[in-house]
Amino acid sequence: MGVGCSSSLPPTVNNPHCSITFPHTSAHTNPTSNHLPINWLARAHLQKPNSARKTPTLKCGRTAQMEIEGGSDSKPILDLHSLDDNLVQKMVYDALVWSSLHGLVVGDRNVQLIVQRSGTVPGVGMVHAPFALLPTVFPENQWKLACEVAPIFNELVDRVSLDGKFLQESLSRTKKVDAFTSRLLDIHSKMLEINKKEEIRLGLHRSDYMLDEKTKLLLQIELNTISTSFPGLGSVVSELHRSLLKNYGEHLGCDVNCTPSNDAANRFSEALAKAWIEYNNPKAVIMVVVQPEERNMGGHAIAVIYFRAGYAPTDYPSEAEWRARLLMEHSSAIKCPSISYHLTGTKKIQQELAKPNVLEKFIDNKEDIAKLRKCFAGLWSLDDADIVDTAIEKPHLFVMKPQREGGGNNIYGDDVREALLRLRKDGKEQNAAYILMQRIFPTDSATFLVRDGSCHKDHAVSELGIYGAYLRNKDKVIVNERSGYLMRTKVSSSNEGGVAAGFAVLDSLYLT
Amino acid sequence: MGVGCSSSLPPTVNNPHCSITFPHTSAHTNPTSNHLPINWLARAHLQKPNSARKTPTLKCGRTAQMEIEGGSDSKPILDLHSLDDNLVQKMVYDALVWSSLHGLVVGDRNVQLIVQRSGTVPGVGMVHAPFALLPTVFPENQWKLACEVAPIFNELVDRVSLDGKFLQESLSRTKKVDAFTSRLLDIHSKMLEINKKEEIRLGLHRSDYMLDEKTKLLLQIELNTISTSFPGLGSVVSELHRSLLKNYGEHLGCDVNCTPSNDAANRFSEALAKAWIEYNNPKAVIMVVVQPEERNMGGHAIAVIYFRAGYAPTDYPSEAEWRARLLMEHSSAIKCPSISYHLTGTKKIQQELAKPNVLEKFIDNKEDIAKLRKCFAGLWSLDDADIVDTAIEKPHLFVMKPQREGGGNNIYGDDVREALLRLRKDGKEQNAAYILMQRIFPTDSATFLVRDGSCHKDHAVSELGIYGAYLRNKDKVIVNERSGYLMRTKVSSSNEGGVAAGFAVLDSLYLT
Repeated sequence: MGVGCSSSLPPTVNNPHCSITFPHTSAHTNPTSNHLPINWLARAHLQKPNSARKTPTLKCGRTAQMEIEGGSDSKPILDLHSLDDNLVQKMVYDALVWSSLHGLVVGDRNVQLIVQRSGTVPGVGMVHAPFALLPTVFPENQWKLACEVAPIFNELVDRVSLDGKFLQESLSRTKKVDAFTSRLLDIHSKMLEINKKEEIRLGLHRSDYMLDEKTKLLLQIELNTISTSFPGLGSVVSELHRSLLKNYGEHLGCDVNCTPSNDAANRFSEALAKAWIEYNNPKAVIMVVVQPEERNMGGHAIAVIYFRAGYAPTDYPSEAEWRARLLMEHSSAIKCPSISYHLTGTKKIQQELAKPNVLEKFIDNKEDIAKLRKCFAGLWSLDDADIVDTAIEKPHLFVMKPQREGGGNNIYGDDVREALLRLRKDGKEQNAAYILMQRIFPTDSATFLVRDGSCHKDHAVSELGIYGAYLRNKDKVIVNERSGYLMRTKVSSSNEGGVAAGFAVLDSLYLT
Repeated sequence: MGVGCSSSLPPTVNNPHCSITFPHTSAHTNPTSNHLPINWLARAHLQKPNSARKTPTLKCGRTAQMEIEGGSDSKPILDLHSLDDNLVQKMVYDALVWSSLHGLVVGDRNVQLIVQRSGTVPGVGMVHAPFALLPTVFPENQWKLACEVAPIFNELVDRVSLDGKFLQESLSRTKKVDAFTSRLLDIHSKMLEINKKEEIRLGLHRSDYMLDEKTKLLLQIELNTISTSFPGLGSVVSELHRSLLKNYGEHLGCDVNCTPSNDAANRFSEALAKAWIEYNNPKAVIMVVVQPEERNMGGHAIAVIYFRAGYAPTDYPSEAEWRARLLMEHSSAIKCPSISYHLTGTKKIQQELAKPNVLEKFIDNKEDIAKLRKCFAGLWSLDDADIVDTAIEKPHLFVMKPQREGGGNNIYGDDVREALLRLRKDGKEQNAAYILMQRIFPTDSATFLVRDGSCHKDHAVSELGIYGAYLRNKDKVIVNERSGYLMRTKVSSSNEGGVAAGFAVLDSLYLT
């Protein structure tokens, strides 16, 4: 991790322009795993600010409302099976031109041999970001639920973050087996010791879901509270799909209004700007902590620190980075996220919150609690011997998730059995490094995936992320909103991992 | 040349979408000579339609109006010599990010070894288009003149195109020595024979100028009436510059309003759409004639034929293309350009119009005539023995231009003497293949040129193109406007050719 200024100290920077930077590597960037996305902060200029913050009311031109949750047959209006090949080729061509002209591009590491600075210097060696040609059909009632719970999750994160004791106790055993979480908890402890108060709190979150084929429920995969990626590219893909539906709607027999527009990058930028306003020092700047080489240093006051890095152990190659993180936490700057928000996003806390009667500690409104619970997949501690027995017996119904951030480290299938048996032998201590989660079998649908200029059709599964922004100054909630969405889709047979891991393409929704 | 449909016949096409295509090679695309621009028709969607059609009134925050034409010292507000290197690096970085996000990109032939389809498939192997980091300082009075004469040139082209006898006679000797012009004249003759009338006439032109250092006059280089390139990329570069001036205006000490905004792509698209409306057949489509492989054929009526190819001999590899051109000319479709408009854009006609008392045949208004004349450089036929003597004596004051389209074929310096002596020996016949033009020595200024992600400072010269759109239905002029501009800049020492030839970057204006 480098900070926008010197990687040691102080965390100051001379110009907000330095904030627009290419992240070098990121476990969060897997949909373009071979590519380097352009920071969404830079993309935020692309779209007009939009004042619509509520769940959009959609006018889908469908003839029959489908009862998805009841498990009836669904016949999506957007039927990819009947598409004429010439039409697909035309749409692919138009989509590729559109991508080039609207910034749906990333640095292409494949051409680094020739364009050596591809991926480190913007503007060279670019390729369109991988995308699904058309939006994925998705039940509107589940979409609405995911939108509705976004502000509730925002509020939940804020409440949990204020309960230092809950965070420390819930993570006390994780601390012993996970060095990274341990360091974060050390910083958190120090803040508790000096009774550090964060009066202005800014959260830019993303809650990820998959639609479970069997139950037809939208179940939460995880809640990201740091470095939430892709508000920029995600917004642009929705516009690409809307543009294609507008131009080809007649041939496709579908309605552009069924694909919700997506203003995530601008919503997040606006929340950052509002946090800067709350800080109330016109000379202060917004600092963005990024992964590549720092480019600037200076002597300006910092109003807001946005962490686009700092979520992975590799972001802290030496003690200097930890000292910087501690210093930032000590500072009066608004941290996005604060150490408490960061810890609240850990899988262990996700699992703790799913326990009976825990949500009730943080949220009063029973309807809100019921809505959140509806999204919770089964989540268990490895200390639960019954569940571990069940998982050893039926490993395919579970996923073992290490505390570690980022996708790709999850354990599936027979590996779950092996891992659990090994842990049982090694002793209880290591249990805390993992949680067990109900395996979600997502709905599978035909998709056209476009990568490196080529399109192929395959069966694919999707993961929906709902962005949420939250800004509070003491008792005043300034922002609490759903801020857009991210749909990622990947070939269902490619591996057993979640959608975020592996070679996903960017996608959007077609609501039915 | 391929037409959007079968390269033979009939000239019909099943969908206007087929029109958005990458030209493969084009003598008009030299600013990105190693690259493939994305068609401006696709780019037209990028910007909002703008109803401002007049010469924009500019509010430049300058303290002292400079008398450029009088030859006084000019001290541009935008002084590149005093720029801090760190500031330049920051601006380059921002400009490259901006380019990626706003479609200022082209296919990069350099990466074709790895990304084989780079340049033939959109969306892969892309690189930012080469651009000047900041706009080039330009005298506002000359800019205004160039804008003012645009509609007069539009009208002139229309009037000249109606005078079939003038075109045939003026080009009668060129016909004997230039096979390509000869074929065009054959089609033109056939149309004259059958007394073919084009009631709806559409012109999308660009008049190119250079600012002559000695006289401080803006002199016309040529008037393009077919396949006028870069309304798309040119528009985007102006926006890039305006964005940089907005963000860095304080450091640069300059005013964003001094760089005129540029809506060329949308203006041209609107003119095409209006021509389609005049054709008055809702089922008819717009066909675009392009250079690469055709992709579509069908059975739709054609309202408008836009030639993005057809200006170079290589666009007609066989008789089939000539037959197609003839058929299109026979058709009732609106041709952009018609064969008459095409011929009116030849250098020979440019030279004929510069002769005394010729403009008067076509234009009544004396003020208009005076304005046009002000832009005319010295132009002579090689039949003028006195001028040829002078040119042999002082070859550096002249340029020899072959009738052939596209830059890069002009003859400069001592080669002028050699060529003239050779022609004198070979006999009068070949004289008609060339015209002689006054050599313009353009103003030289410091410029930051950005290519392949790198920036370097050099002395450069610029060429300003003013786009003009004209649409007429019988006696009704529907469109006659200046439609935006194109500024191209290149290192002054790179070679003796005009700016359009060689390695120019895209640029815009800073008016003083």
